[in-house]
Amino acid sequence: MILVDGVAQPQVDAGDRGLHYGDGLFETLAVFAGKIRCWEDHWRRLSEGCQRLGLPCPDQGLLEREVSELSKHARRKVVKILLTRGSGPRGYRIYPEATPRRILVASDWPDYPPQHAEKGVRVRLCQTRLGHNSALAGLKHCNRLEQVLARQEWRDEAEEGLMLDPDGNVIEGTMSNVFLVRGDTLVTPDLSQCGVAGVTRQRIIDRSPQLGIPVEVSKVGLEQVYEAQALFLCNTLIGLWPIRSFEDRSYPPSDLLPTLRTIDGLETS
Amino acid sequence: MILVDGVAQPQVDAGDRGLHYGDGLFETLAVFAGKIRCWEDHWRRLSEGCQRLGLPCPDQGLLEREVSELSKHARRKVVKILLTRGSGPRGYRIYPEATPRRILVASDWPDYPPQHAEKGVRVRLCQTRLGHNSALAGLKHCNRLEQVLARQEWRDEAEEGLMLDPDGNVIEGTMSNVFLVRGDTLVTPDLSQCGVAGVTRQRIIDRSPQLGIPVEVSKVGLEQVYEAQALFLCNTLIGLWPIRSFEDRSYPPSDLLPTLRTIDGLETS
Repeated sequence: MILVDGVAQPQVDAGDRGLHYGDGLFETLAVFAGKIRCWEDHWRRLSEGCQRLGLPCPDQGLLEREVSELSKHARRKVVKILLTRGSGPRGYRIYPEATPRRILVASDWPDYPPQHAEKGVRVRLCQTRLGHNSALAGLKHCNRLEQVLARQEWRDEAEEGLMLDPDGNVIEGTMSNVFLVRGDTLVTPDLSQCGVAGVTRQRIIDRSPQLGIPVEVSKVGLEQVYEAQALFLCNTLIGLWPIRSFEDRSYPPSDLLPTLRTIDGLETS
Repeated sequence: MILVDGVAQPQVDAGDRGLHYGDGLFETLAVFAGKIRCWEDHWRRLSEGCQRLGLPCPDQGLLEREVSELSKHARRKVVKILLTRGSGPRGYRIYPEATPRRILVASDWPDYPPQHAEKGVRVRLCQTRLGHNSALAGLKHCNRLEQVLARQEWRDEAEEGLMLDPDGNVIEGTMSNVFLVRGDTLVTPDLSQCGVAGVTRQRIIDRSPQLGIPVEVSKVGLEQVYEAQALFLCNTLIGLWPIRSFEDRSYPPSDLLPTLRTIDGLETS
């Protein structure tokens, strides 16, 4: 089911700037029995993204009601909020009369095998790189061709691929953020030049220190990934997935995971 | 008027990957009395772009017929061909059953004042930069947030803005390519790491030597732009526009322009 500006309909205007330029932002929400997991975090990222792109942000309560309408009666549901700059005349210029468009799409919960969270997943190294652009870094915007090309590099022989920046730093997975375990510390790549600053990633950064697990945000080279004691991926829908192999290297499960999973919002179901 | 997969309709499916990820390509065509200017060049770029993105390309004759349907009876018309990867399930992965979608949008000819071509235009330097990504460089793809942000930097005090790459090299205008005149030689930025390889730019590169004007494609620093004897912009709709000022520097019209305008496809109307 799809709501476009609050109206149930499966289509959008063909002049939408999201369609022409990827001129928009999105959030992928996990909704459990009508409750949006980490809603305040998603809302904050969306409104900050709107500010950075110069896009008027819709009312929080309105979005909440629409998500609830799309997910009612479901035990769990995925709802994507897609916010575009709406329709406009030809060209990149934004006219004051442009009204943003909100598109909410409800989907079934993905059928990830439970062993992905328990035993871990296989991860490969992508050849497609993430370009640097500090003006767009961190945003969950709709310019996603890099991820599309990266995901084209393999089929079913891995569950995720890690992407590098032009300098060879490890940034993230195509659909997830990555953490390394080094001693008793978590390390996750700095995203000031590229990458999506995930809500789950931020929650781990914010809450782990209170659980006695220090977190370092820094440049991460490929060597550091190979030499890490353990690795894991995270996003809103998968929660935490240990990485059991990256290319030809195997990793044991980290004994920090049970502790991290006690963080509110990181349960696997 | 809009044709979606050959059918006159103003809307597209809300699940289109163009809308969600900017997963598509476009061409902007100048159509004069039913004839598409430089059609073979546009077609070649579109089909090469499809190959690079792994997107099946529609039949050339079919596109030609649809453009002609949208522009018949008009003295001149702009037709945009937007080709997306069509609709698909959530996620970046491409499924073999995905069928590309072609969206053709006809617009009136833009009302650029004639003095832009005669006397030249005012150009500013954009703060927003173009990220490096050789996998996407040159393509006229639908990930255009960099151009959107750059075009937000000013209103009417200039007609165009030049964009730099992360290393400070000059790459292009937000909607045009740029050429420098140095002695009797034309210089235009190398686009192997970012930028759109324009059809008009390529035509100038290919044809100028036959007219006795050598062309150099190379890295171009900001200093070289300031020190150029003359500068001009080009694209399919504007043809050639001399730059009369860039930031606080003024430039004379180049006496090479009349010669360049004899190149087939570069007439101003």
